Amino acid sequence: MSTAEEMGRQQRAISVSEFFEKNRHLLGYDNKAKAMLMIVKEGVDNSLDACEEAGILPEIYVGIKEMGPEKYQITVRDNGPGIVKEQIPKIFGRLLYGSKFHRLRQSRGQQGLGVSCAVLYSQLTTGTPTTIVSSTGDGKTHRYSLKIDVAKNRPIVMETNVEEGEPWHGVESRFVAECVYRENKQSVMEYIKQTAVSNPFADIVFDSPSGRIEFKRGVGRLPAQPREIMPHLYGVELGLLTRMMASTEARTMLSFLTTEFSRLGKQSANEILLKGGITREEAGKTVPHTKMKPRRVTDEQARRIIEAVKQVKLVRPPTDCLSPLGTQLIESGLVKELNPEFVAAVTRSPEVYRGWPFRVEVGIAFGGSIQSFNVMRFANRVPLLYQQGTCAVTRSVQETDWKRYNIQAGKLAEEPLVIFVHFCSVWVPFTSESKEAISGYDIIIKEIKLALQECARKLSIWLSGKRKSAMISKRKSTFERYAGETANALSIITGAAKEDVERKIIEVIKDKWGEINGGEVEGEDQETGE
Amino acid sequence: MSTAEEMGRQQRAISVSEFFEKNRHLLGYDNKAKAMLMIVKEGVDNSLDACEEAGILPEIYVGIKEMGPEKYQITVRDNGPGIVKEQIPKIFGRLLYGSKFHRLRQSRGQQGLGVSCAVLYSQLTTGTPTTIVSSTGDGKTHRYSLKIDVAKNRPIVMETNVEEGEPWHGVESRFVAECVYRENKQSVMEYIKQTAVSNPFADIVFDSPSGRIEFKRGVGRLPAQPREIMPHLYGVELGLLTRMMASTEARTMLSFLTTEFSRLGKQSANEILLKGGITREEAGKTVPHTKMKPRRVTDEQARRIIEAVKQVKLVRPPTDCLSPLGTQLIESGLVKELNPEFVAAVTRSPEVYRGWPFRVEVGIAFGGSIQSFNVMRFANRVPLLYQQGTCAVTRSVQETDWKRYNIQAGKLAEEPLVIFVHFCSVWVPFTSESKEAISGYDIIIKEIKLALQECARKLSIWLSGKRKSAMISKRKSTFERYAGETANALSIITGAAKEDVERKIIEVIKDKWGEINGGEVEGEDQETGE
Repeated sequence: MSTAEEMGRQQRAISVSEFFEKNRHLLGYDNKAKAMLMIVKEGVDNSLDACEEAGILPEIYVGIKEMGPEKYQITVRDNGPGIVKEQIPKIFGRLLYGSKFHRLRQSRGQQGLGVSCAVLYSQLTTGTPTTIVSSTGDGKTHRYSLKIDVAKNRPIVMETNVEEGEPWHGVESRFVAECVYRENKQSVMEYIKQTAVSNPFADIVFDSPSGRIEFKRGVGRLPAQPREIMPHLYGVELGLLTRMMASTEARTMLSFLTTEFSRLGKQSANEILLKGGITREEAGKTVPHTKMKPRRVTDEQARRIIEAVKQVKLVRPPTDCLSPLGTQLIESGLVKELNPEFVAAVTRSPEVYRGWPFRVEVGIAFGGSIQSFNVMRFANRVPLLYQQGTCAVTRSVQETDWKRYNIQAGKLAEEPLVIFVHFCSVWVPFTSESKEAISGYDIIIKEIKLALQECARKLSIWLSGKRKSAMISKRKSTFERYAGETANALSIITGAAKEDVERKIIEVIKDKWGEINGGEVEGEDQETGE
Repeated sequence: MSTAEEMGRQQRAISVSEFFEKNRHLLGYDNKAKAMLMIVKEGVDNSLDACEEAGILPEIYVGIKEMGPEKYQITVRDNGPGIVKEQIPKIFGRLLYGSKFHRLRQSRGQQGLGVSCAVLYSQLTTGTPTTIVSSTGDGKTHRYSLKIDVAKNRPIVMETNVEEGEPWHGVESRFVAECVYRENKQSVMEYIKQTAVSNPFADIVFDSPSGRIEFKRGVGRLPAQPREIMPHLYGVELGLLTRMMASTEARTMLSFLTTEFSRLGKQSANEILLKGGITREEAGKTVPHTKMKPRRVTDEQARRIIEAVKQVKLVRPPTDCLSPLGTQLIESGLVKELNPEFVAAVTRSPEVYRGWPFRVEVGIAFGGSIQSFNVMRFANRVPLLYQQGTCAVTRSVQETDWKRYNIQAGKLAEEPLVIFVHFCSVWVPFTSESKEAISGYDIIIKEIKLALQECARKLSIWLSGKRKSAMISKRKSTFERYAGETANALSIITGAAKEDVERKIIEVIKDKWGEINGGEVEGEDQETGE
């Protein structure tokens, strides 16, 4: 039996490192094979983000070396801008630290948890500190060896030094962790292959325990830089709005609304103030109190502003914060990787969930070298290999009426069909910290399904064309087989030269074949279309 | 394009409150109906934990009152020990703060996230602070109204006062949040009903928007108090071991191992030291260096100790840290709640995963008032209502070969069958912070399946008995129908009195019926048994 006083003495703070050390399965460290994938993924995702942000064509090196039973050294190196000396320990030695959480811009990392958790897992399983070597191109190379003080969630620098030499830029991080190396569908190998598809501007070298593989870039320039955007009022909740009003430098509510939010004009701002009850009387009329100081808005008024936002039609957030792959890139990637008979891709227009813009892209590849059904999922260009069952992509595929597109729904899993889905957003709603599956918001499911349908329609047309042409060529060859005999009979009846008649019959077959092919396939289009 | 310096300036710490505010779906705040359930659940779970720990028979009050469109006031009150004044703001106003994370003992809460997240969600959606009223029985009632400073993850006390009066003890917390009230299978109502089943020693009053319901306690005393245990070496990973060695007050490795770990004797400790290479030479022999100072053990030696643990057979951790419900309570709970025709329950022996002891209990109820198939899941007496698909319990049910137990596997969902599974452990491996599903560790799945099989076997025996008895009673009634006529004929042939013959025939039928029932059913047992 305990008293309130005894219980009080037991209360204490839990550091975020302790929390995730104990709950490391939430971050994807459920088993030793997956742990290796997680470490490589965090390293490579950060490298690609840094290169893209600095406008550098990425050259990534991943090395995996066995050090003992279930013990591996994992190295990730890039030619990115490097990390300034002061930030190295914090980025690697502190959970919930980073540059991507607070900004609205598409990037692979978004939580400030990834790479520090790789450090945490390494020290937890092998006791080995992580080493980081970096230079920003000033001729100075900084080397750190560090661990995390779990109780404090702070870096412990074990060793550090600086060397002067030839200028270079980039980061190399080296982890020693308890892992298992596999080459299956959810492995480092698969992750790197798929990363090469979704980041065709990157050169990737993978030194695996079974040999070296190079993925050469297929595109010589970086995609357009996604821009950072301001929050959009549609997605701002009361808590955030109050915080923003408390810390803004804007002196009036009108300037606060029009300068700190994305695409909010003076007219809409006035409408929101009026509907939100931020008003004053002027010549007997109630008008928006545009000059109200943000700091003086009460909680109740803030709540009414949020209510008002739902009633006012606002301009959608801008979409240059997103960097989709584009249909051409998806199609060429699928062709290069899978050698299919048919390929189609679609990039949907931007949509918004919880105020955050997102885009969905889908590619479909069919037949050819494809042996079996597969769904490839990507979020902000990062392949997702686990938790397929709980992902919005899987649900969308399952809920699509494939029968309408000449594909047997019951036998979907037996079709030689690969579905490629890319979701990009300034904030991907992952179902867990391990970032393996996308949450099933209605609008997201809807967009994925529409994109799937658009591609499936193209596949359906092609499939019926293929079946028609198989039927026609059978009919044609029957005609051709009897052309000589028919010409002979006709030449006897009409007295015309047999060769002339035969030539004409063949011409007719060719015309007819062409006509049937064009005409009927067009008709089929309308039948299967929506 | 950004340089390393520009990127460095953007790096900053993310507070755990900010993280979970943005990722609140991870904590279960995905939608407004679920949000209400989460708030009630966090409050009630804490109340039950506190009452149990203080040895008080719980009286819990839950009130839900509509305040406006999608806006509710949620009140949870208990007769527990109360919270000391200084701890109130920290417990409610700080994420990752609590008494349950660092200790090894079965409790409903374990993360130090729950109730503070309810405060966070309330302020995020309605801007309203949470009020807490508490007294520890000293005649002083402390009242707090507080919010969370999200950027700092610290409480902001808006108002506080103390009143003197009649002594009482307990806590009342009141949230105002954006919610939706529903009464379906995943609602507050269902949660409270199931909580009453798994906590039959609690009185619960629920003032719902549709009326007041009282759940009276069915048991007049608390279950045995689960004891706090020390960590067991089987589950200790390198990171934790090193931290423990750095902070221990033990002067030698031998005393460290034997005093700070659960059930580790001198002999096993010596064996571990020897195998782990903590040795010294004595008279030409290598012996364990029992007097080595824990602080002087190197990382490499620590790693070898962890390796050695895998090779040494240790005594299992004690299990009085667990508080199972027991078969009697499960069965009576199922009967009271469901009025079935058949009920059976099993409590398995304790097992260990990642060094943490756990127990599985299963109950099965069949027929009677049960209309359809249902699986009720509990973890440390808390009903789990969401994420059924990803839970170890669901997987175990699906992987059980029901056909062997006279239940059509394909039609499981159509059977009038309720399965009750209770998992209790000092640390429940939930799949997410929202604590809705149990991770599928192999040993956990195995234990659940064994318990299911044990119950299913009993059901199978009963089912075949039921079918047999239906057949027998049909046969018996046929005999009975013709008993008079047969007696008549026999009396003519033998000259015996008709009444005597008829009485004897009926006796024979009764004997026969009894015999068939007993004997064949026993045989059935062995056929369906494992």
